[in-house]
Amino acid sequence: MIQQTDTDIPAQPEPANGARLFVLPEPLVFRSGAVLDHAQLAYETFGTLSPARDNAVLICHALTGDSHAANHTTDSAGTGADRPGWWDEYVGLGKPVDTDRFFVICSNILGSCYGSTGPASVNPATGRSYGLDFPVVTISDMVAAQHALVSHLGIPRLRAVLGGSLGGMQVLEWAARYPHMVEAAVPIATTTRHSAQAIAFNEVARQSVISDPNWKHGDYYGGAAPDLGLAVARMIGHITYLSDESMHVKFGRNLQDRERLSFNFETDFQVESYLHHQGRKFVQRFDANCFLYVTKAADYFDMELDNPQGYAAQAFARTHTRFLVVSFTSDWLYPTYQSRELVAHLQGAGAEVSFCEITEKWGHDAFLLPNERFSDILGGFLRHV
Amino acid sequence: MIQQTDTDIPAQPEPANGARLFVLPEPLVFRSGAVLDHAQLAYETFGTLSPARDNAVLICHALTGDSHAANHTTDSAGTGADRPGWWDEYVGLGKPVDTDRFFVICSNILGSCYGSTGPASVNPATGRSYGLDFPVVTISDMVAAQHALVSHLGIPRLRAVLGGSLGGMQVLEWAARYPHMVEAAVPIATTTRHSAQAIAFNEVARQSVISDPNWKHGDYYGGAAPDLGLAVARMIGHITYLSDESMHVKFGRNLQDRERLSFNFETDFQVESYLHHQGRKFVQRFDANCFLYVTKAADYFDMELDNPQGYAAQAFARTHTRFLVVSFTSDWLYPTYQSRELVAHLQGAGAEVSFCEITEKWGHDAFLLPNERFSDILGGFLRHV
Repeated sequence: MIQQTDTDIPAQPEPANGARLFVLPEPLVFRSGAVLDHAQLAYETFGTLSPARDNAVLICHALTGDSHAANHTTDSAGTGADRPGWWDEYVGLGKPVDTDRFFVICSNILGSCYGSTGPASVNPATGRSYGLDFPVVTISDMVAAQHALVSHLGIPRLRAVLGGSLGGMQVLEWAARYPHMVEAAVPIATTTRHSAQAIAFNEVARQSVISDPNWKHGDYYGGAAPDLGLAVARMIGHITYLSDESMHVKFGRNLQDRERLSFNFETDFQVESYLHHQGRKFVQRFDANCFLYVTKAADYFDMELDNPQGYAAQAFARTHTRFLVVSFTSDWLYPTYQSRELVAHLQGAGAEVSFCEITEKWGHDAFLLPNERFSDILGGFLRHV
Repeated sequence: MIQQTDTDIPAQPEPANGARLFVLPEPLVFRSGAVLDHAQLAYETFGTLSPARDNAVLICHALTGDSHAANHTTDSAGTGADRPGWWDEYVGLGKPVDTDRFFVICSNILGSCYGSTGPASVNPATGRSYGLDFPVVTISDMVAAQHALVSHLGIPRLRAVLGGSLGGMQVLEWAARYPHMVEAAVPIATTTRHSAQAIAFNEVARQSVISDPNWKHGDYYGGAAPDLGLAVARMIGHITYLSDESMHVKFGRNLQDRERLSFNFETDFQVESYLHHQGRKFVQRFDANCFLYVTKAADYFDMELDNPQGYAAQAFARTHTRFLVVSFTSDWLYPTYQSRELVAHLQGAGAEVSFCEITEKWGHDAFLLPNERFSDILGGFLRHV
C-alpha cells in the first residue's frame, strides 16, 4: 500500500545542482496565445564551446527529466565529483556524445519543476505559485524557449539536437521550426503524434492526480500535495515504460515474501513492490501540476505530417538536416511503426535519413539504458556530423 | 474531469434481474484456509435440461460480469422481453451455444456483487457488510462454489465449460479440478498464469481505489463510496481491454469539440471522453471492494504448468476433456503466446486440443464482440460435443 509521504517539492522551483538560469529577454508567446513575461530556463553545459561557436549539441530530456544529462566529473571542463546524470551512458568524454569534441547544452523544459518556469513557480503578479493559471505548454513552446537560450549563448547553428521520448518530440519540433539551425537531428523512441492509446494512458494518469482531494484544482501549494494520486499516476506510466518481456524477466510472478501468498491486499508480488517504490520516489521529486502540464504537452503533440500544407511537412520538404531515427523493438508506448511513418515521410521529402530499429527487451526505457548497438550507431552518426 | 456520482450499490447485493439464488449446503473452505458459511451464488439458466440431465453447458463470466449471459427472450424457455445479455452474440436459439440444444448455466462469481456472496454482502455475524473481512477469493474458490451449484442441479457431467478472460481461467480450473465432469473446455482470450504486466495493471488499479480517502480500508458502506478511485481504476482496465489499433480506429486524435484544443485540463480528445464515460458508468454498477477481490483472484491465478507435480499438470496428463483454445491477435492483456503455452502443454500431455488465433483488431474485448470466424469455430466445436 502506498503510504502518504512528506514531500519536499519547493513551491519556488530550484535549478538542478549546478544548473544556470536563463531569463528570456522577451515575453514568451505560447501556442495557446498566452503570454508569459520573464520565463526562465535552468540549463547546464558540458564540454567547451569552440571559438567559432560551431560545436554545440542540444540534448532534450524526456517527461520528468532535468538539465543534468551527464555528470560533470569526466567532462573536459569537469572539476571533481558530481552526481550521476540521466544520460551518462551516452554523454561524456569518449562517449557517443563526446564532451571532448562537443559543447553540450541541456535545459529543463518549460512547465517542469527543475528550475525552469512552470506551474509550481511563483507568479510575480500574485506572489503565489501559478498552479493552473500557468499557460498550457506545448512542445512548440518548450522549443521556442530553448531557441531563445541557444540564441542567448551566441550559437547560430547546432551540430545536433538529440533526445528520446518527449525529448524526441522536441528534436522533431526543432528540425521543423528552425531547420537552418539544426545540422543533424536524432529523434529516439518517439513519435510525430501522440496516439489515442498514449493519450489514454496520460489522461488516466492525470485523472488520478485530479481525483486526489489534495489536488484542489491545482491550488495545493503550502498544503498537503496530491501525493497518492500522483504516485498512482507514476505507476501507470512505469508500466508503459517497460515491456511485457522485461517485466517477466525482472519480476515474473516472484513473491515479495518468497514463502507464500498473503491472502490480503498488501504487497504480494515483487512487481507490485517495484511499482509502489517508483510511485513513492516520484512524489518526492516531482510536482503534481507539472506532471499534468508535461503529459498534456505530449498529448497535444502532432506534427500533422499527413497535411502537406502543415508546418512540419513544409519544413521537411526543403530540409538540409540529417536525421538519425532510432526505435526499440519492445517499445510499445511509441512503437517502431510510428518511427517508420516518420522515416517514410522524410524519405519521401528527399531528406537524408538513417533509421535503426534496435532489438531490445527493455521497452520504452531502453534509450536510457546501456545498449552497445545504440551506442555504436549514435557515436558513428555523430562522428560524421 | 470525472464528477462525483451518486452511486447506488446496494450494501446487500441483489441478484441480477431474473437470477435465482443457490445457498451452498456446506461451509466453503477457501484456498486461503478461510471458511464461509451459507455462501450463495446467483445464477441463471437458459434452455431446458434434458431428462437425462446430459445437455448442460456452463458459461463462466469475466471480471465484472454477471449471470445474465444471454437474454431470455429468444431462449427456448423464454417468456417475452428481457434486457440484453453480455454474450447474446454467442448464446441463444440457433447461436453457437444453442439454447435449443443445451441447458446453459451461468452464475455470478463468488466475491462479486451481482447476487453472489462477496465483500459487499452482509456478514450475518455482524449485520454489516464484510468489507475486507471477506476472505480473499481465488479462481479455485469460485470454481468450487460453481461445482456445488452444478451438483445441486443434479448434473453429473457438463457437456462444455466456456468462458473468456477471467472466465477462461475458471474454465481451465474446472478442467484441472473436475476433469471427469468436463467433456469439453473452451478457454478464450485467457492465460494459465497472470503475467507480471497483468499483475501490474491490476495493482495500479487497486491502488487507485485504496488511495481514495472514501475507501476507508474497505469500510465505506453506508457512506460515500470511493467512486473517483474506482473510476480511474476502470479507466486503466479499459485501456488494456482495447488495443493500440482499435483505439486509433475508434478515436484517433479526434477532438471532443471538433474545432480546437482547449488549452486547459478539461476533455480535449474523444478517447478521454470515452474513458471518463466508462469510469462513471462503472461506479454506478460495481462495488469497489469487489473490484479489489476479483482482480486479486486474477493475479493469484497460476496453474504452475511448469511443475509436473502440480495439480494442473497432473490432471491434464490424464485428461479426457477436449479443448478448444481461442486467442485474438490484438489481445495484449493475454497475448496469443500465453494460449500457445497452454496448447503446447496440452499437446505434450496427449490431450485432444484445437487451437485458433483469430485475427481481430479489437484487443482483449474481441471475445465479447461479433466475429464471424469465432462464431463458426465455436459453433462447429460445440456441434461435435
